[in-house]
Amino acid sequence: MAYRAPVAEFQFILDHVVGLDEVVATDRFSEATPDVTRAILDGAGRLCDDVLAPLQRPGDLHPARLENGVVRTSPGYAEGYRAIAEGGWVALSAPAEHGGMGLPTTLSTAVNDMMSGACLSLQLNPLLTQGQIEALSHHASDEIRALYLPKLIAGDWSGTMNLTEPQAGSDVGALKTRAMPNGDGTYAVTGQKIYITWGDADFMENVVHLVLARLPDAPAGTRGISLFLVPRNLPDAESRPGVANRVKVVSLEHKLGLHGSPTAVMDFDGATGWMVGEPNKGMAAMFTMMNNARLGVGVQGVGVAEAAFQQALAYAADRRQGPTPLGDGGIVGHADVRRMLAGMKAEIFAARAIALSCAVAADMGTATGEADWTARAAFLTPIAKAWGTEVGMEVAQQGVQVHGGMGFIEETGAAQYLRDVRVTAIYEGTNGIQAMDLVGRKLADGGDVAWRLLEEVEQTAEAARGAFPDLAVEVWTAAEALRDATEWMLTREMTDRFAGAVPFLRAWARVLGAQLHLAAALAEGGSGPRSALARVFIRRLLPEHVSALAAARAGADDLYALSDADLGA
Amino acid sequence: MAYRAPVAEFQFILDHVVGLDEVVATDRFSEATPDVTRAILDGAGRLCDDVLAPLQRPGDLHPARLENGVVRTSPGYAEGYRAIAEGGWVALSAPAEHGGMGLPTTLSTAVNDMMSGACLSLQLNPLLTQGQIEALSHHASDEIRALYLPKLIAGDWSGTMNLTEPQAGSDVGALKTRAMPNGDGTYAVTGQKIYITWGDADFMENVVHLVLARLPDAPAGTRGISLFLVPRNLPDAESRPGVANRVKVVSLEHKLGLHGSPTAVMDFDGATGWMVGEPNKGMAAMFTMMNNARLGVGVQGVGVAEAAFQQALAYAADRRQGPTPLGDGGIVGHADVRRMLAGMKAEIFAARAIALSCAVAADMGTATGEADWTARAAFLTPIAKAWGTEVGMEVAQQGVQVHGGMGFIEETGAAQYLRDVRVTAIYEGTNGIQAMDLVGRKLADGGDVAWRLLEEVEQTAEAARGAFPDLAVEVWTAAEALRDATEWMLTREMTDRFAGAVPFLRAWARVLGAQLHLAAALAEGGSGPRSALARVFIRRLLPEHVSALAAARAGADDLYALSDADLGA
Repeated sequence: MAYRAPVAEFQFILDHVVGLDEVVATDRFSEATPDVTRAILDGAGRLCDDVLAPLQRPGDLHPARLENGVVRTSPGYAEGYRAIAEGGWVALSAPAEHGGMGLPTTLSTAVNDMMSGACLSLQLNPLLTQGQIEALSHHASDEIRALYLPKLIAGDWSGTMNLTEPQAGSDVGALKTRAMPNGDGTYAVTGQKIYITWGDADFMENVVHLVLARLPDAPAGTRGISLFLVPRNLPDAESRPGVANRVKVVSLEHKLGLHGSPTAVMDFDGATGWMVGEPNKGMAAMFTMMNNARLGVGVQGVGVAEAAFQQALAYAADRRQGPTPLGDGGIVGHADVRRMLAGMKAEIFAARAIALSCAVAADMGTATGEADWTARAAFLTPIAKAWGTEVGMEVAQQGVQVHGGMGFIEETGAAQYLRDVRVTAIYEGTNGIQAMDLVGRKLADGGDVAWRLLEEVEQTAEAARGAFPDLAVEVWTAAEALRDATEWMLTREMTDRFAGAVPFLRAWARVLGAQLHLAAALAEGGSGPRSALARVFIRRLLPEHVSALAAARAGADDLYALSDADLGA
Repeated sequence: MAYRAPVAEFQFILDHVVGLDEVVATDRFSEATPDVTRAILDGAGRLCDDVLAPLQRPGDLHPARLENGVVRTSPGYAEGYRAIAEGGWVALSAPAEHGGMGLPTTLSTAVNDMMSGACLSLQLNPLLTQGQIEALSHHASDEIRALYLPKLIAGDWSGTMNLTEPQAGSDVGALKTRAMPNGDGTYAVTGQKIYITWGDADFMENVVHLVLARLPDAPAGTRGISLFLVPRNLPDAESRPGVANRVKVVSLEHKLGLHGSPTAVMDFDGATGWMVGEPNKGMAAMFTMMNNARLGVGVQGVGVAEAAFQQALAYAADRRQGPTPLGDGGIVGHADVRRMLAGMKAEIFAARAIALSCAVAADMGTATGEADWTARAAFLTPIAKAWGTEVGMEVAQQGVQVHGGMGFIEETGAAQYLRDVRVTAIYEGTNGIQAMDLVGRKLADGGDVAWRLLEEVEQTAEAARGAFPDLAVEVWTAAEALRDATEWMLTREMTDRFAGAVPFLRAWARVLGAQLHLAAALAEGGSGPRSALARVFIRRLLPEHVSALAAARAGADDLYALSDADLGA
């Protein structure tokens, strides 16, 4: 079955669960009226259904390849990208002064979710450009903004992030790429970068690389890193791409999935670059790009989960294997298959609503400048990223399982989701890094944001006490357990926190997901399919917070009681 | 890093955890002395390290392919298979009267685990032959046994299982393949079968298919299925493979993993076959083969998990990314990476020990004829199968995660484990089918086996009360919770049981795994690496029984409260 963007689902979540109305009530986002929102969701849905979804398989079967230094992209990708760019979908939330639509991140997050479900390989391209637009808007000089932003926003040029080097992955501070001043305000950037997503494309007029590098005599570690803009072709004053810069794609990786997305090893050989932001402050600028991208990656996971779910459900409705409690219909009538499908649907709703509530907080921060909103977005970002991608993997895994033997056959397409989505738990900061961010930096406020979020969970539980007394108690109790665990975290050294960080994040996702399900059930009026789905989530999935919190609070001693040799024995 | 068979680990588990000595104390298996056991484990370990492990990547890169009707196998597979056959490894536990070694299934299970870790694609071939030997030994006529068993046991010929048809997967009773009597005691078998593992191979002198088919006028469903032996080449009286039978490979599947293992669509076009067992009793005979194979598939998961773990650990020891609590060494020193690796190791131990204790029960049943042992093996088989393969998937998943970005690159090899192991949760009865077997047939005794197993868990907890008071309490409490849930299951209709079957099985695996960890820790003497690993399992992983049992006891009502349309909305 072909993917269909779940437009009505987004509309419901935005209107009734995460509170887009609050965003629209601000001056900054007043143009995102209900009509505009509906038009955006509908338009994006049509693009996904008609143009992007048909590119999912061709990208897998005909990977991007390097031919005499040119990245030849998968069949149909050039046309698909053109539809994205010409529709204005690259930069929905980019600043209006350079040609963007200035719409809320909440909307672009919904659109990113849809586009990821339709064709993740291609969607990665505009996602990175979005991050670059954000970074340049905040940190680049007026000249650079004027020269680059209109082209990036129009989708004529695309953006990349160049962080990783062979010896410097999660430890970004270990990078060695150098930038030498040329004396004319530009720099000569030299070094090799790996895992560069969409490092080049034969359909792209220009590709703009943001590169982390060190100035001569820069301090060691992350305090000595600066950010440089290095275009593939050096633009003239009218933003026409001119002569080739000294940057090239050395090779493309052979990957588990995302075959349609070229992952490049890039060589910068004295390439001309411009500094973005302050010397030695490159990490701060890059974080602007990464925070945006992290939320974007979270909904990549959700989008793929949606697509995998839709395919599994269609298969289960059609495939007959013996009588079920519902009669002789499809295997969706068997209790175990139904358990899987209902669980998948419940997980997708929760992860999607978490991501969108993170986006709402980001928009409110932008619109109001209030630190509370910004801190809330910062707290929710690692949860949205890690949990969205965990759900992507888990739902894709179950999607294969629902297909039985057919799931293992590549032609079915179920396995591609599993392969494609796997890297989302790794890139833009592994999910372990996200969890460490949560228990480290994001608890550095002493738990302020955490307590506010938990109060809201308990308020929702209170509000649900009439309509769903049993569910309300479960959610309230879970919030209390999470409060205890958060207090525990705040008393511990970082090593103990890190040893429990991943399950701690998981427990947060379970509790927030339960709250959002309850809110949806209440919005529905107290009975109906959303109430039934909330029940599935709260009774079957929320209880995982118990085991997750046990692991979260286990401390690190038991791990280090095993020596390296013990692990190997 | 190359896979190394964990010989000492098997030796420890057999000697100190699952009680191989009890098996060896029987007349039937008295030849499996400690010296013999050690020689078998050592010999199999060398075969795996030196011959099979090097075939893991070539099989993936150069899949088996169909060329003019001939299945061309991956480079080196012919030589690898010859080493397996000539070493006598196909039929370690086959009956001695036809050339087998007559050793305990416990030993062949350990060897299957090792061989799966070294090269799952190739190991599948002898695994299926083992199942066929078992089925023929129990159900075939003397003539067939005399003609076929020596060749199968020697590994000159291989065996396949032909159950699935396009419309008949989990619902075997829907199959349509027909067998018409030829009047001379043979049958003409006609039909198409799919997903036939190792349906043919260019290095195999003969391939013997066991085919489920219907006699004319057979009753509908599973009561009308008979089993037929259909050789690729019709043997003469001296077991020389003669003229080609009317059976051929139509195509090979393009699969997510296991590229080295040809998965065939087989066409039987009036092929000559011999009935095995009674008319319309084919399912019973096939179950003999499947029960054996299910345990074998369980340790396929464990074996792949072992290999994925070894590779991840080696990578984590080598890869440096910033300072860790243990200094500037590999990322294994980071708490979150160590959590993953320690968890992987703890899971592998538990799943392996569960499988081997199932094998011990099977051997004791064979040796003593006591129904208690046979029932115990029957109860543990679905747990060993489903849990071993879940652990295979989860550990392979985490193995990729430990590698970070490298994990997504195919050359690394971590992703291959993920791809290869995926089908083990599907074939030989999906893990959902296993769980339904557990809550259905395996509780049909009113819980007799379950209560015995839980008493033993509590005895182990009692025995550990001195050395590990905190852990003992956790295990004892978990056993009580599992007892409650089992009692609950026994009072419910099948639809409610099925709705909670998968998490119920998971809870059993958690509790049994905890018991076996505790037993290992006690055997070690109360302190040391096994005690540390037991602590990791019991504090971080055992708590999952709480959430699993919540889901197990959720009943089916909430699932059916969602209509099919609600699921799709």
